[in-house]
Amino acid sequence: MNNSITAPKGFLAAGISCGLKQSKKRDLAMIVAPAGATAATVFTTNKIIAAPVQICKENLKTRKIEAIIINSGNANCCTGKLGLKNAKTMCIKTSDAIESESKKVLIASTGVIGHQLPIEKIEAGIESLGKKLKANQKAGNDFANAILTTDTKAKQAVTQIKISGKNVTIAGCVKGAGMIAPNMATTLCFITTDVNISKPMLQKALSDAIGNSLNKLTIDGHQSTNDTAIILSSSMAGNAIINKQSTQYKKFAKTLDELCNDLAKQMAMDAEGATRIFTVIVKNASTKKQASQAARAVADYDLVKCAINGADPNWGRIICAIGSSGVNLKLEKLSCKIAGIYVFKNGSPAKFDAKKVSKLISAKEHTIEIDLGIGKATDFCYGCDLSKDYVTINADYHT
Amino acid sequence: MNNSITAPKGFLAAGISCGLKQSKKRDLAMIVAPAGATAATVFTTNKIIAAPVQICKENLKTRKIEAIIINSGNANCCTGKLGLKNAKTMCIKTSDAIESESKKVLIASTGVIGHQLPIEKIEAGIESLGKKLKANQKAGNDFANAILTTDTKAKQAVTQIKISGKNVTIAGCVKGAGMIAPNMATTLCFITTDVNISKPMLQKALSDAIGNSLNKLTIDGHQSTNDTAIILSSSMAGNAIINKQSTQYKKFAKTLDELCNDLAKQMAMDAEGATRIFTVIVKNASTKKQASQAARAVADYDLVKCAINGADPNWGRIICAIGSSGVNLKLEKLSCKIAGIYVFKNGSPAKFDAKKVSKLISAKEHTIEIDLGIGKATDFCYGCDLSKDYVTINADYHT
Repeated sequence: MNNSITAPKGFLAAGISCGLKQSKKRDLAMIVAPAGATAATVFTTNKIIAAPVQICKENLKTRKIEAIIINSGNANCCTGKLGLKNAKTMCIKTSDAIESESKKVLIASTGVIGHQLPIEKIEAGIESLGKKLKANQKAGNDFANAILTTDTKAKQAVTQIKISGKNVTIAGCVKGAGMIAPNMATTLCFITTDVNISKPMLQKALSDAIGNSLNKLTIDGHQSTNDTAIILSSSMAGNAIINKQSTQYKKFAKTLDELCNDLAKQMAMDAEGATRIFTVIVKNASTKKQASQAARAVADYDLVKCAINGADPNWGRIICAIGSSGVNLKLEKLSCKIAGIYVFKNGSPAKFDAKKVSKLISAKEHTIEIDLGIGKATDFCYGCDLSKDYVTINADYHT
Repeated sequence: MNNSITAPKGFLAAGISCGLKQSKKRDLAMIVAPAGATAATVFTTNKIIAAPVQICKENLKTRKIEAIIINSGNANCCTGKLGLKNAKTMCIKTSDAIESESKKVLIASTGVIGHQLPIEKIEAGIESLGKKLKANQKAGNDFANAILTTDTKAKQAVTQIKISGKNVTIAGCVKGAGMIAPNMATTLCFITTDVNISKPMLQKALSDAIGNSLNKLTIDGHQSTNDTAIILSSSMAGNAIINKQSTQYKKFAKTLDELCNDLAKQMAMDAEGATRIFTVIVKNASTKKQASQAARAVADYDLVKCAINGADPNWGRIICAIGSSGVNLKLEKLSCKIAGIYVFKNGSPAKFDAKKVSKLISAKEHTIEIDLGIGKATDFCYGCDLSKDYVTINADYHT
């Protein structure tokens, strides 16, 4: 089975090195839907928006998208009019290579901020990419590797379901362990599927899935200037079109949600210096927004992240983060479980076996559960530990 | 000259070890105003409030305060009814030792959360403290040392001014490099002065000064459960009472502001693992609140803190933090100076001598200036770098 982004019917991909990275690793990637695809997207909410994101927003007005061109090693952000021109040139060059139109091309960039792209290298690279497009696993792997920056490995996921009796495939790949590339970072997420679905339903499924996965991920609490998630559907699975919130829609949306969660966890595990990940679940909050705010406050708190790095069941830091997050709570009902074991219950410290909990935290993954005791809303957030390696990678690297 | 908290007229102090710390270092401190003092305070905004803070809020209703009792090594937080009773016992024991009333005693604690105080040790300690009270420098130094947790040194400041022809002294000491004691942390700040001032004016001066100093300090972005700042004025300088926003008030308030800034910077420099501090100034924001929010976003951002640790003029991380902070800005006017040198101007990268800027960042202290180009408001924030030692201290320590 093909475990890459080329697994769904109707997609070709390629990834090469065109000389953007000093390491000579792959840095230019393309995915093509020769028959066109329905596209849905989620972009960064950062107020500084990179040139490729601006171009994407414009080209998304086109009914069918035929390609996405991506470079790593340079974010093409804070690059002014020339940056915008270069991003347009990349789209034109891509449409030339695949005999399409530039408005049918989406684009994403990741890497250092504030430097102009070496556009000649990229132009030559795109020409070469156009000749390498394939629908096999190797082409998908090359694509997944070419979008990386400081990631240590490619992050891919593929899943299959039956929808109205037809096999539907969804495949995805991501880059960027949060906002932590050396100079800036970018979460890029590309998903392909052959499901037959209307654009509004595809957009809803993607927005919900990203909201429950990548947007639940906090490495260092920031959204970058280039964050982009794109899903393309080729409609080639042959299922009856999904155009409302039917049972079939729910099945597709749930599967997409699981796939995105798989990718989000792969990202967290590959965060710079991360050795383990954790899920913070906040229950019984006044509102879902408050639950989310509290969960994020815990997952973002350096002292909690350090404690987890040291496998220390230091619940005081968790309670402090909750209190400091500004959410409503009832202290006399406030409770906290680490890896399923009460460490704080109804406003008072609970007796627990610290060695046992420490061992549970030492696993690759564990859960912190907080009960605010004031309402009925729940939300969660993924986090990773903070290690000395994170500081080494981000302090010793020079621009 | 006496450079400690006992420098202003009318104050005695002492600091001893009563056995709360494994290190046997000083852990119990008392300051006494035998003739009574006017008190003003600023407390944490964390929703989880430690027992001593609750007691303070109650006892502040008393017109004159005669003592403050402080312990380090245990925060007496999340300790329920027994914690509250123990805090009250500390006030009663203190009033016994100095022949006062318990409602005239304020209290503060710092250290580990969720453990009950060994109250017998503290009771014995308070008795012994009562016999050691002195107005000299050594007593002040002992006090300043007894309030520390993971701080590497005592942090004190003293200043003198003339007010209506009289010498007025202000002295202060702080503990806690932000919220970073091993288990929890606490900023405690004690200030004494002999100025003659009304309670409302003293409160205004303290609130403004803390707002411009300790509250501008971000080590890891959190307020702890025990944060407390208290100023006591003995009125013994003999100046005409300050009871309105007169020139004399402004002179006093400005001096108090400077003293608090001095203490805040000493704290930042003593933050766990910190090697240098920086001031983020945000100009031309829509509102002061937005200026503050943007400054804090930069000073709190781990990637900026790591870059400063590595003396890397990585302005992309600063711009990313600004964009991610949610404040209004005009990209075409957005500018950033590091140590006085433009690195980003009117929305585009500026050419600069990276080696020169790197050298300037390597100094103990530097400034990052951001112009949002959208309004007229300004605010600032202090930050410190993030080093491997921060992680070591906070990951390897076990509860």
